[in-house]
Amino acid sequence: MKIKQQTMKNQTLWFPSFSKSGPELYLLSKPAPKGKDRLLIYMGEVGPIWSYPEAALDCVVADPKKGTKMYGLKSYIEYQVSPNTTNRPVNHRYKHFDWLYERLLDKFGSAVPIPSLPDKQVTGRFEEEFIKMRMERLQGWMTRMCRHPVIATSEVFQLFLSYKDEKDWKTGKRKAEKDEAVGAMIFSTIDPEGLPDLDPIDVEHKCEQFSRFTRAMDDGVKDLLTVGQEHWKRCTGPLPKEYQRIGKAFQNLSSVFNSSGYEGEATLTDALTQAGKTYEDIALMVAEQPKKDLHYLMETNNEYKGLLGCFPDTIGVHKSAIEKVKEGDKLVATSKITPGDKITMAKRASTMSYALQAEMNHFHSNRIYDYNRVMRLYLEEQVKFYETIAEKLKLAHSQFTAM
Amino acid sequence: MKIKQQTMKNQTLWFPSFSKSGPELYLLSKPAPKGKDRLLIYMGEVGPIWSYPEAALDCVVADPKKGTKMYGLKSYIEYQVSPNTTNRPVNHRYKHFDWLYERLLDKFGSAVPIPSLPDKQVTGRFEEEFIKMRMERLQGWMTRMCRHPVIATSEVFQLFLSYKDEKDWKTGKRKAEKDEAVGAMIFSTIDPEGLPDLDPIDVEHKCEQFSRFTRAMDDGVKDLLTVGQEHWKRCTGPLPKEYQRIGKAFQNLSSVFNSSGYEGEATLTDALTQAGKTYEDIALMVAEQPKKDLHYLMETNNEYKGLLGCFPDTIGVHKSAIEKVKEGDKLVATSKITPGDKITMAKRASTMSYALQAEMNHFHSNRIYDYNRVMRLYLEEQVKFYETIAEKLKLAHSQFTAM
Repeated sequence: MKIKQQTMKNQTLWFPSFSKSGPELYLLSKPAPKGKDRLLIYMGEVGPIWSYPEAALDCVVADPKKGTKMYGLKSYIEYQVSPNTTNRPVNHRYKHFDWLYERLLDKFGSAVPIPSLPDKQVTGRFEEEFIKMRMERLQGWMTRMCRHPVIATSEVFQLFLSYKDEKDWKTGKRKAEKDEAVGAMIFSTIDPEGLPDLDPIDVEHKCEQFSRFTRAMDDGVKDLLTVGQEHWKRCTGPLPKEYQRIGKAFQNLSSVFNSSGYEGEATLTDALTQAGKTYEDIALMVAEQPKKDLHYLMETNNEYKGLLGCFPDTIGVHKSAIEKVKEGDKLVATSKITPGDKITMAKRASTMSYALQAEMNHFHSNRIYDYNRVMRLYLEEQVKFYETIAEKLKLAHSQFTAM
Repeated sequence: MKIKQQTMKNQTLWFPSFSKSGPELYLLSKPAPKGKDRLLIYMGEVGPIWSYPEAALDCVVADPKKGTKMYGLKSYIEYQVSPNTTNRPVNHRYKHFDWLYERLLDKFGSAVPIPSLPDKQVTGRFEEEFIKMRMERLQGWMTRMCRHPVIATSEVFQLFLSYKDEKDWKTGKRKAEKDEAVGAMIFSTIDPEGLPDLDPIDVEHKCEQFSRFTRAMDDGVKDLLTVGQEHWKRCTGPLPKEYQRIGKAFQNLSSVFNSSGYEGEATLTDALTQAGKTYEDIALMVAEQPKKDLHYLMETNNEYKGLLGCFPDTIGVHKSAIEKVKEGDKLVATSKITPGDKITMAKRASTMSYALQAEMNHFHSNRIYDYNRVMRLYLEEQVKFYETIAEKLKLAHSQFTAM
């Protein structure tokens, strides 16, 4: 993620010789006027937390429809997005989601990891399977964005979810594209109201802790994804083929037995055929199972892989702010900044740290929820799977004669 | 199997220019005197059947012990064989079993498929695992021999099971080695008492039917063995490794989560560790399972592969007898045999066919018993296996918080 830097029209830079990359613009800019866009941070039980809206926002992405324009020359897929606030569906194409993603990344990317959208795809865009998968992933992305208090309450996200008409949408788009409180300037709208300034040492310590954690989790998630992919391949490839071959071998033996000309072995041959069919059933079950359980485990981990991939950039912004603050004494000594500027920088780095902590706490709470949920789902389906196999085999077993 | 041919000392050959290979010796020999060794065949519900003894013979092969001779220069493993008739154990080394096998093959091989013993092995003969496996297979072989009415009641088999002392054993051995009613001459001791002579066409038809069936079953059994071997490899190789890796990935993620510094996620991390351990348990179960079920399915099919491998020779003896009978008219026309010899040949081919039919019916009845038994055992263990996995996963599932 590249943090975009812009020269703020209405803000005189105090130290314009600072590099344009990094959070210097914010650290030494004139404070933005406290407006309606202020993002508040409170002290919660687990530490600093974002201010959460009372009602949870949610939306449903559904009904993909093929649309055309330019007299049918161009076709596209349009999804209906219905937020629980208005219950009124609005139509969006993939490229609108992409536009929203770009806006969110510009505006919040320094403080909030904005996961990428599901991949763009050129071929097969109109295939049912692809549309279904993309919709599912757009739903996952939207759900995650809805759950985020900063994103959910933002003007641009609200516009996307509940624009009134085409004119409203166009006007809103233009306004959002002109928004200047983007990049590191987002921190100027963040207000850790009444919270004491953090010591730069603590800020650095916190930042390092988050960095370590997100890197370790990134490794863990990627490891699980690798293992999961291999397991998926085995479950949909060689394993069911093997069960099928076992099934066929039993049925084959049954039909050989059937040709024996020996009387009174119908019970055995029927049972053997049944056992063979059972293993063929199991082959199908094995091949279908990953879609019922592993799929969700993989999707959740894929989402987290995406989220975690944003952290190095987000944390990078914080690290360079910390570096700047550390240089403070030298900058004062060489008269590059005033002692007042130095105090301001430390104060703003503290605000950034509160934002990062609030974001990490948001991340942790979501992570606990998501992993609990997906593990329950996964294990539930796994239990059903093994129970069904056991039942099928029990039935097959009962067909053989006890001797 | 090579059918040994011997010139019978006390029997004048009617047509000594006949080739020494094949059943000609029996077809045209003077009839053997009806002695106590007569093997009776009756008409049962399923067709011609051997005369079965009232009490089923059985024996236990157990307690392998290392013995030495030549002042400890040579060591060997001795097994205790206890028949249910005497309940008195006798000791036998592998080479004694091998001696018995040779005698049975010589004497009954033309009429009864005598499966090979478990393989000879040069290295690792004293390793526990090998001794256990060999004992199990010797037990399987002995059980099969005990079950056979012709074998079980034979003098040489009874000697093996219940010789009184070393002298008795040595004397019996010498006598058995001198037995002359071997090879195709075994048919001279077979008496399809009161059963009508079979038409040579019927004899040929039956023989072809058995040939087709045993070949088809041989293919079926070999197919199942191939599939089973591959399944065994997967179950003891890549599959448990994969479950282990899934288990490790969950536990790894759990320990990453544990390092988050976020409060109140012990429930999740404990549950995730538990889930990981469960998949490690499952890995062990998967790897151990083949020994509990597939093993017996494989052993039974291996035994049948061995048995079926004897049929081409047994059936070959019958086919060449049929060919000889078919040549009857020509042989009479060229005065090589008398019309009376021709009738005798047809009658004896009929006796051979009754023996083959009795043997096939014995085979079928055992086959039905064995496959019913092994399939029940296999499926029973498979049910237990899947049920245990389902229970373990259910427990793991219950550790996660419902949200």
